[in-house]
Amino acid sequence: MAGYYSVIFTSQRTTLDPEGYEETAQRMTTLAAQQPGFLGMDNARNDDGFGITVSYWTDLESIRCWREQAEHLTAQHTGREKWYEWFQLRVCRVEREWSFQQTADGPKQG
Amino acid sequence: MAGYYSVIFTSQRTTLDPEGYEETAQRMTTLAAQQPGFLGMDNARNDDGFGITVSYWTDLESIRCWREQAEHLTAQHTGREKWYEWFQLRVCRVEREWSFQQTADGPKQG
Repeated sequence: MAGYYSVIFTSQRTTLDPEGYEETAQRMTTLAAQQPGFLGMDNARNDDGFGITVSYWTDLESIRCWREQAEHLTAQHTGREKWYEWFQLRVCRVEREWSFQQTADGPKQG
Repeated sequence: MAGYYSVIFTSQRTTLDPEGYEETAQRMTTLAAQQPGFLGMDNARNDDGFGITVSYWTDLESIRCWREQAEHLTAQHTGREKWYEWFQLRVCRVEREWSFQQTADGPKQG
């Protein structure tokens, strides 16, 4: 499958309000998964506060709707006020993909 | 700027050969930065071994050249043999991007 979209969100956390941040991050993950066009989300963060979140969507309109979802807008506002020193957002079209999975029988390329 | 490319590499590390992995990962970062068309790289990994690396490239041909670089091919081979339980690769075209930076004068949206 290709031709869907990814949103790459790279960010540097401040040290402010860690509990508030964690709670909201979890809530946003739940909310995003309920949005039309949502395909999935990956998330990783280093100990120094640098992190990458990638969400996957069927189309650009779904991304726009999620960006403008009311509770998400509030979270974005607090993010700029408190949680992020900086962030960068990239909306991308997935052109190609492949995967690899270790199996009991040895490596398998997909 | 848009119209360039990103490669999203999501992976689950095994617990095998951590020193060998770290050394090779650093070497690959150095090598990638010397490749034609390289624009940058972001990397984050959780404590459970799940990680996301995103590299940025001017065009698809540069991505193909990096993928087939000799020392990188060897690293890919060892990655499948030892370092990764699974991984997923997505080649994407960056359609839009924006950023935010906290400043001394307060938030600034770019």
